[in-house]
Amino acid sequence: MSIEKVQIFDTTLRDGEQVPGCKLNTRQKLVIAERLDELGVDVIEAGFPISSPGDFNSVNEIAKIVKNATVCGLTRAVKKDIEVAAEALKNARKPRIHTGIGTSDSHITHKFKASKDEILERAVNAVAYAKTFVDDVEFYAEDAGRTDNEFLALVCSEVIKAGATVLNIPDTTGYCLPEEYGNKIKYLRDHVQDIDKAILSCHCHNDLGLATANSISGVINGARQIECTINGIGERAGNTSLEEVVMILQQHPYLNLNTNINTKLLYSTSRMVSEGMGMPVQPNKAIVGSNAFAHSSGIHQDGVIKNRETYEIIDPEEVGVTESAIVLTARSGRAALAYRAKKIGYELTKNQLDKVYDEFLNFADKKKEIVDEDIHQIMEMHKIEHKAIAE
Amino acid sequence: MSIEKVQIFDTTLRDGEQVPGCKLNTRQKLVIAERLDELGVDVIEAGFPISSPGDFNSVNEIAKIVKNATVCGLTRAVKKDIEVAAEALKNARKPRIHTGIGTSDSHITHKFKASKDEILERAVNAVAYAKTFVDDVEFYAEDAGRTDNEFLALVCSEVIKAGATVLNIPDTTGYCLPEEYGNKIKYLRDHVQDIDKAILSCHCHNDLGLATANSISGVINGARQIECTINGIGERAGNTSLEEVVMILQQHPYLNLNTNINTKLLYSTSRMVSEGMGMPVQPNKAIVGSNAFAHSSGIHQDGVIKNRETYEIIDPEEVGVTESAIVLTARSGRAALAYRAKKIGYELTKNQLDKVYDEFLNFADKKKEIVDEDIHQIMEMHKIEHKAIAE
Repeated sequence: MSIEKVQIFDTTLRDGEQVPGCKLNTRQKLVIAERLDELGVDVIEAGFPISSPGDFNSVNEIAKIVKNATVCGLTRAVKKDIEVAAEALKNARKPRIHTGIGTSDSHITHKFKASKDEILERAVNAVAYAKTFVDDVEFYAEDAGRTDNEFLALVCSEVIKAGATVLNIPDTTGYCLPEEYGNKIKYLRDHVQDIDKAILSCHCHNDLGLATANSISGVINGARQIECTINGIGERAGNTSLEEVVMILQQHPYLNLNTNINTKLLYSTSRMVSEGMGMPVQPNKAIVGSNAFAHSSGIHQDGVIKNRETYEIIDPEEVGVTESAIVLTARSGRAALAYRAKKIGYELTKNQLDKVYDEFLNFADKKKEIVDEDIHQIMEMHKIEHKAIAE
Repeated sequence: MSIEKVQIFDTTLRDGEQVPGCKLNTRQKLVIAERLDELGVDVIEAGFPISSPGDFNSVNEIAKIVKNATVCGLTRAVKKDIEVAAEALKNARKPRIHTGIGTSDSHITHKFKASKDEILERAVNAVAYAKTFVDDVEFYAEDAGRTDNEFLALVCSEVIKAGATVLNIPDTTGYCLPEEYGNKIKYLRDHVQDIDKAILSCHCHNDLGLATANSISGVINGARQIECTINGIGERAGNTSLEEVVMILQQHPYLNLNTNINTKLLYSTSRMVSEGMGMPVQPNKAIVGSNAFAHSSGIHQDGVIKNRETYEIIDPEEVGVTESAIVLTARSGRAALAYRAKKIGYELTKNQLDKVYDEFLNFADKKKEIVDEDIHQIMEMHKIEHKAIAE
């Protein structure tokens, strides 16, 4: 089976930036856009041009500097939105307009107070109008996660006829379970007319902690684009984490799916976005959290010291983290203590280790983390000779 | 179909506390244990008694105060560990010893340098020995996620014969995909002898962001216990988040699975653990992040104002958050501005709204977040009359 490509559609600068307190200025956005281009994302969603003059300007400036990725602007299914997006994107090498409308009963009834026929007509008209400006038109069926599959397939079939190149199937509320979301994608692969003329795209929200799993289920079932953000930022509980889906595909080669991402830039990109937006990444965040490769328990540390793959499946260097941090705490075993002691110049005999280990536990019960200075102090208390460090 | 119960096994104080920099003292652990008991968890894993004198003492004290939950202590498949755990648990109303050994080829070869027969023997002996102290013995097959299913089923069958009441199937490295993990549980349901004498338990790690999805896949396929932590804390990228799996089961009644958790205590418990351990929860964390129920974009705010369920599937009050925070930014639409303005005393006509909205966007392009004071200033600039607030 040949390996197929999954497109990475980064929406850090659009859906990600819709976070309370995370607004970036144009200069900051340009720096991030340049980095995303270097990281190897296929599409950069740069903003929602009609939403404010600042956003228009950002999309316009990003369109000028991006070298490789497609640059995309969001619109509602509204003529003026589409015109403004086309104007903002006019200097992009590869422009894409992303337009769409809510298709679930909840959205149709409460938000649009319209009928299904009217929604279908507005969807088709928006895509057709966007197509007069650019070749690459992505359609989103907002709240697709709660849209009945038959109507969703009908809308998808009609917008393909109108020229849509990508069909975005958002689980807007983050409600779907992975199997359910995968089945929805499979249903569309099987029931949308001329589905091979367009790519199905996963856009999942993380309200129940399932965005990553849902996106992976989507591509296993035939989607070929994932919409995601660095660090999984976005409104509420955020979007799918770019770093997670990329590493899952890389770590499961039997899926025969890969991306263009240069994974060695993941960690530094995560830091750049976190610092730029003032949005902390929790230490236990997968792939990019500060503890993601740290081991503190004795059992684990012992295992890692014997063979890294006992506990780690990802080599930290693959994502740009330079070494597994071995942190010493009350949970650390003798092996971890001996390993660290050796690193800083103490070769311990078994007897010495037994003695200083008890001392170490006394220290560790009082302190959260044992640092090198504490070890020097313990060794001094037990009169253990310090040697020059071997390497 | 009748509703079945999924046991919540909380390991915040054991696997969760194995986080660099998160060590708690006994007093802090007692406060958290008391809260977990109130929250309604079925099992509290209180520590790893042999690992340090401080840990022994904590397990011992927790065992004395917990009223409803089973109190559990971790051990290796080592006699001394088991004796110490039994001693630490001697005052528990419902004590459980959690013992086990690595069963994957990687663990057998690199960590234990043993044969499969030897591992099996040690597993059986450990369970039988623990059973001489307590009735309730949980067995863990470490790195079960990478253990071949046939050997895993054999180990499980044998430890059930030796008296194990719970079989913990950990995905120690966080490597499994949800379908794979679910299939493993299903295989064990189908192939372990006398499987009805024990409960299968999911213990998933979050290295690839899949711990929650894997645990849910596990219970869909027949497991009846989930091992998890508050805020998903734990070594590396952490464990399954208690709050996520509990709310997924609650939000998907068609799964016919529920828990005993009093969800209204989730948010305050999350804060308590985060503050006690000094482990920040990122704003975009599902269920308990500070932004989990915040809406900033105009489209979303408009939808939420018309009908909360358009964008939210969980009523924030269900998890103990008192209201959806509507945050005003450059992404906010007219509806959100009018809504907030009304809340603080300005009834705007359509014309007035058009005028002040442009002003609002100017403010919002310069500031990250618009606060009430800014709105008062904008209204004053446009000489809009302030009224007493209706409610």
